Amino acid sequence: MTDAQRTSAQFAGETARSGEWVRQPNRFTARITADGSSGWPVQADRYHLVVSLACPWAHRSLIVRGLLGLQDVLSLGVVDPIRDDRGWRFTLDPGGRDPRTGIAFLSEAYLAADPDFAGRFTVPAILDVPTGRVVSNDYPQITLDLSTEWTRFHRPGAPDLYPEGLREQIDEISAAVYEDVNNGVYRCGFATTQRAYEQAFRRLFEQLDRLSERLSRQRYLVGETITEADVRLFTTLVRFDAVYHGHFKCNRHKLAELPVLRDYARDLFQTPGFGSTVDFGHIKRHYYETHRQLNPSGIVPAGPDESGWYAPHHREQLGGSPFGTGTPPA
Amino acid sequence: MTDAQRTSAQFAGETARSGEWVRQPNRFTARITADGSSGWPVQADRYHLVVSLACPWAHRSLIVRGLLGLQDVLSLGVVDPIRDDRGWRFTLDPGGRDPRTGIAFLSEAYLAADPDFAGRFTVPAILDVPTGRVVSNDYPQITLDLSTEWTRFHRPGAPDLYPEGLREQIDEISAAVYEDVNNGVYRCGFATTQRAYEQAFRRLFEQLDRLSERLSRQRYLVGETITEADVRLFTTLVRFDAVYHGHFKCNRHKLAELPVLRDYARDLFQTPGFGSTVDFGHIKRHYYETHRQLNPSGIVPAGPDESGWYAPHHREQLGGSPFGTGTPPA
Repeated sequence: MTDAQRTSAQFAGETARSGEWVRQPNRFTARITADGSSGWPVQADRYHLVVSLACPWAHRSLIVRGLLGLQDVLSLGVVDPIRDDRGWRFTLDPGGRDPRTGIAFLSEAYLAADPDFAGRFTVPAILDVPTGRVVSNDYPQITLDLSTEWTRFHRPGAPDLYPEGLREQIDEISAAVYEDVNNGVYRCGFATTQRAYEQAFRRLFEQLDRLSERLSRQRYLVGETITEADVRLFTTLVRFDAVYHGHFKCNRHKLAELPVLRDYARDLFQTPGFGSTVDFGHIKRHYYETHRQLNPSGIVPAGPDESGWYAPHHREQLGGSPFGTGTPPA
Repeated sequence: MTDAQRTSAQFAGETARSGEWVRQPNRFTARITADGSSGWPVQADRYHLVVSLACPWAHRSLIVRGLLGLQDVLSLGVVDPIRDDRGWRFTLDPGGRDPRTGIAFLSEAYLAADPDFAGRFTVPAILDVPTGRVVSNDYPQITLDLSTEWTRFHRPGAPDLYPEGLREQIDEISAAVYEDVNNGVYRCGFATTQRAYEQAFRRLFEQLDRLSERLSRQRYLVGETITEADVRLFTTLVRFDAVYHGHFKCNRHKLAELPVLRDYARDLFQTPGFGSTVDFGHIKRHYYETHRQLNPSGIVPAGPDESGWYAPHHREQLGGSPFGTGTPPA
């Protein structure tokens, strides 16, 4: 089995006849709740969040966990950015095993929960440490639950990333961002026909133009402070020039050439809790070494220059403040 | 035979053990001379220049032919940007044959000149129409000979692209530009090891930085007017964002992010005889559809945005004038 076959095998069944790429639904959608009514009560030291630093969906949960100060009650496992045919691996840890759960492959926790599971083993995943089973890989719900169900363990001064009065607006913009941007870049990169690619490309950049317009007038996507909506847009934008522009052919412009979005992403990058979670090495190695069907050589680009992330953004001029009445994370 | 195999077969023997890509030498190096001492006298209506609009080496000869006004004495054949396993094809022409020579594949002219030729069939090539044979595929010499041997047929007001007093400087800068830039982008793209790629990448951008420095003080590379040196740098720069940045992983910066080189290339693009020879469609289709070993899907990026080529460059402020005492081509 070649590397390319291995990788395509992981995405089997996710390409429609039209050449369009259709993401598999999340399989494990249990929720961890404050009142325990779901059967999975919020509890300190019981659950384990597994992420890849490469993955934008996992990145959301890493940022939110840090902004809310949940590090002490929800432990973290980080997988190797390079998947093999067995999926995500704990090869960065001593002995190749996750120190908290003892597993070598994330698939073990999936198969412990459902021995018949035949989909992709995805991150983020929240594992129940006592049983070693996956509780949830439902990334959009994971971050919302960290914000709304885990409140008991939030640090003092934690921001409200999903304020009740703004939820409708956050959900609305997040849905558009998901379709055209978060998942849109994958639809560009994994399209297998020119037509499917160009359709995804057009929707992506039309949406980025609308977001530029919106963000030229306000510092954050919704309200005067950072919300879940910003976290979700950020994890795609921060990867844009490093991987989506070249590897996924999202190349009408670099983010560096879209001044409003560039400065918006730069502002977030420089906000405590964001930039420190970004690992460009993991990001580039994952995309370029794992998707051999797109990059057979596995050679990882030496660019782009990253100095722009540390340059002034001047977004304070638009008003707002990142944490509102709260405080930045330590 | 897959597309990828076809393409690699065309480059067989050009990858060193270190993973470095080493361009084959030009095989047909006969010169067409004013005095005919080479056996190939300069003559009107005898020779046929075959180019691909995608190819930077061929592009040089197309620009120089136009700047010097040789269109009426040296005919032009344009091949399909997509090569197959038989090499460059005249599939754009009626009946799939070059109207001037009647051949369907450029290889026919190569094999007519040398039935044992086993290298790549490259453009530009100058064919002798009466015999149907390749006279020269020696691209660096072809343009110099158009400038210095074909003078009898130059248009009134044709620029001197290789003035005697500046030849040493032109040769010197052209050698550096060739090594690190013209061929350097190919050494990035066709490297088969990370190490070989990174070495080529470093040399490329170090040279681009030196050229930026030089061109921040003067409008053209050598002297006060356009010379052969500018033509040679232009054909790589104009392809930079369209193909080399993504496809060849030359991605420290886009040309659009390097203001001096961007404005220099834009100035040339807007100079009569340059922009009109650029076909971004051919360029992108050739690289992305032909090199399946780099881009297995064959999907051609919809970007980059090309509007920058028509934007102001402000290079007049540096003095100099494109054609000196000559005139622009019609």
